[in-house]
Amino acid sequence: MVRVTRRVHFSAAHRLDNPAFTPEENRRIFGLCNSPNWHGHNYELAVTVEGEPDPMTGYVADLGKVREAAESVIGDLDHRNLNLDVPWLEGVIPSTENLVVAIWQRLAPRMPSGRLVRLVLWETPRNSAEYWGE
Amino acid sequence: MVRVTRRVHFSAAHRLDNPAFTPEENRRIFGLCNSPNWHGHNYELAVTVEGEPDPMTGYVADLGKVREAAESVIGDLDHRNLNLDVPWLEGVIPSTENLVVAIWQRLAPRMPSGRLVRLVLWETPRNSAEYWGE
Amino acid sequence: MVRVTRRVHFSAAHRLDNPAFTPEENRRIFGLCNSPNWHGHNYELAVTVEGEPDPMTGYVADLGKVREAAESVIGDLDHRNLNLDVPWLEGVIPSTENLVVAIWQRLAPRMPSGRLVRLVLWETPRNSAEYWGE
Amino acid sequence: MVRVTRRVHFSAAHRLDNPAFTPEENRRIFGLCNSPNWHGHNYELAVTVEGEPDPMTGYVADLGKVREAAESVIGDLDHRNLNLDVPWLEGVIPSTENLVVAIWQRLAPRMPSGRLVRLVLWETPRNSAEYWGE
Amino acid sequence: MVRVTRRVHFSAAHRLDNPAFTPEENRRIFGLCNSPNWHGHNYELAVTVEGEPDPMTGYVADLGKVREAAESVIGDLDHRNLNLDVPWLEGVIPSTENLVVAIWQRLAPRMPSGRLVRLVLWETPRNSAEYWGE
Amino acid sequence: MVRVTRRVHFSAAHRLDNPAFTPEENRRIFGLCNSPNWHGHNYELAVTVEGEPDPMTGYVADLGKVREAAESVIGDLDHRNLNLDVPWLEGVIPSTENLVVAIWQRLAPRMPSGRLVRLVLWETPRNSAEYWGE
Repeated sequence: MVRVTRRVHFSAAHRLDNPAFTPEENRRIFGLCNSPNWHGHNYELAVTVEGEPDPMTGYVADLGKVREAAESVIGDLDHRNLNLDVPWLEGVIPSTENLVVAIWQRLAPRMPSGRLVRLVLWETPRNSAEYWGE
Repeated sequence: MVRVTRRVHFSAAHRLDNPAFTPEENRRIFGLCNSPNWHGHNYELAVTVEGEPDPMTGYVADLGKVREAAESVIGDLDHRNLNLDVPWLEGVIPSTENLVVAIWQRLAPRMPSGRLVRLVLWETPRNSAEYWGE
Repeated sequence: MVRVTRRVHFSAAHRLDNPAFTPEENRRIFGLCNSPNWHGHNYELAVTVEGEPDPMTGYVADLGKVREAAESVIGDLDHRNLNLDVPWLEGVIPSTENLVVAIWQRLAPRMPSGRLVRLVLWETPRNSAEYWGE
Repeated sequence: MVRVTRRVHFSAAHRLDNPAFTPEENRRIFGLCNSPNWHGHNYELAVTVEGEPDPMTGYVADLGKVREAAESVIGDLDHRNLNLDVPWLEGVIPSTENLVVAIWQRLAPRMPSGRLVRLVLWETPRNSAEYWGE
Repeated sequence: MVRVTRRVHFSAAHRLDNPAFTPEENRRIFGLCNSPNWHGHNYELAVTVEGEPDPMTGYVADLGKVREAAESVIGDLDHRNLNLDVPWLEGVIPSTENLVVAIWQRLAPRMPSGRLVRLVLWETPRNSAEYWGE
Repeated sequence: MVRVTRRVHFSAAHRLDNPAFTPEENRRIFGLCNSPNWHGHNYELAVTVEGEPDPMTGYVADLGKVREAAESVIGDLDHRNLNLDVPWLEGVIPSTENLVVAIWQRLAPRMPSGRLVRLVLWETPRNSAEYWGE
């Protein structure tokens, strides 16, 4: 078994806010991430697929097609507002944790070959979240 | 003469839009960057100061103080909306070019020692703008 | 389950030397790393915490608090000599392997939420050690 | 148990082509990677070894010796053509997946100490393959 | 005046060899870079354009169009052999120095706005060449 | 004219301290960098040489020889204490500014071809100094 990884990126605005909290609670819990008029990030996503290399091609998966599948999902996020513009994120607090799980659910059924086994999503070069579907 | 550089970073939301254009013109000219509900970036700023090293300290400038000066300016931008939240950007289309010039004007008079000679502002790892005050 | 990671950094001096070896053995085994008057590195530490995202916040752990916990530990190391200045490293040969284990033991009980599951410590961009508590 | 990792690099030419396919099939399946007169990459390889740190040295493995072992293998690849110049790649389609497996088979028996547990091979900063010997 | 920069990348095979030298001289002068069956690199190109920001757009140049211009040139190089496949490199020894000058000559007349003032071409993350048209 | 750049690296310990200051002044001026038992960094040095590419080789300078020249200088610094171990730094406060000037003076006469026109020395990925010999 071999794992292959393709990295893709997108830029988006978001804000962390839970309407079940009071404004004061939101400010205390989320700090600057609760800033009312949004802020944003350059996100990086690493998509990892596992399988046996096909003896005819040497590929676990054609990374060009993995990229296409990933971009068909993050195309909904790129240059968008994650709180307002994305139907499949409705009601989701767009923390990195929640985003990586939501992206998994959209992306897993679109893999061209191999099995999706890991997603890593960086919100900044220093902060990331990792999910493996369980 | 020696130049010393300190890099700092901030995350912000913005949108490129000129109210003098029609919505159609804004979409055609700015493309995805005109997306109505904002998007955002992790910005990196490199602040370069020139001078002769002080023979008593070996410093052109104490980079800790350069960092403080830079953060006193970008503190207004971090986790904010560049179109809505920053009085000194009012009326400025927040392109990387316009941002680097506006940051220069705020930052140049705050340098602790040495002379500000170059700012480089990255909007993404692949896109940047550079200004040297002229 | 989701894993979240925060990276932090520190700069320190050290030297690899085992007093149970002769000076010749130390030089042969540790090479340049045995250099008598110390040398140093910019260390990077990636702290990974696992848990279920809290449905109210979307957080496995508030990465700002993970950062505070990590900095409360590496604050003892930053701009210090790892052989001379750190009580909790007394008697430890400060190889990257031994450092990552010692940092784990200090850091694991301080996690604000989630369970510490992985530390990666880079001594240089090309050399690192990884520990998962077992 | 601790894992230590050393990164090394090499530059090589290659081409993806399976003589069992027609030229048209090769072009359709491999796209630009099938370009007849070769293309090339700067490859990065991360070599990870697991073991218990030796109490006398603090080392799972001397990373200088891990580097030597890795370079004794990739020395056959550096500034070479992976399709034409490397006896131990004869008949192998040099996809990143097949390369990482072939490097494992050469490298595993040469580890100075510790057990080889992971190889990651980057063909570009965005594309990689990972193998753990099973 | 402001400078804006866009980075693009391509992967190519090449070989350094001057037919005016004997094979022995070529090997002595170019070392591994003279390896007969080619080797290759992931190249990065930074394209810098200077001008006054347009007051209507905030742009010195639309970096999307700078990218298109750059890709119309490097599209001839990507996944190609720089010695064999590129008519406008015929007779050019493909050193990084010669490549950056040849790319300049193709790219300068295609700039959408602003004036091309600097190209930096990285052959590896550690080796680069810079040209400014004079 | 073309500029070529080669990056090299070294790891060293140092301390900022001026014996003409009192201990209190040294602590106030240099902060953590004055820590008595040293600290250290992974330094990166970019060496830039300018000239016309030789029409027979395409080289401004053989970067392998630039690297050798650079390493003949930084070999005195690698895995050393910059305050104690380097005769040509005696009496120099090892700030990044003073180091880059001292390295220039050692390196400029050793250039194999081309003219040394710029050195950039990074003490950390965020702090650097640049010198051009004037």
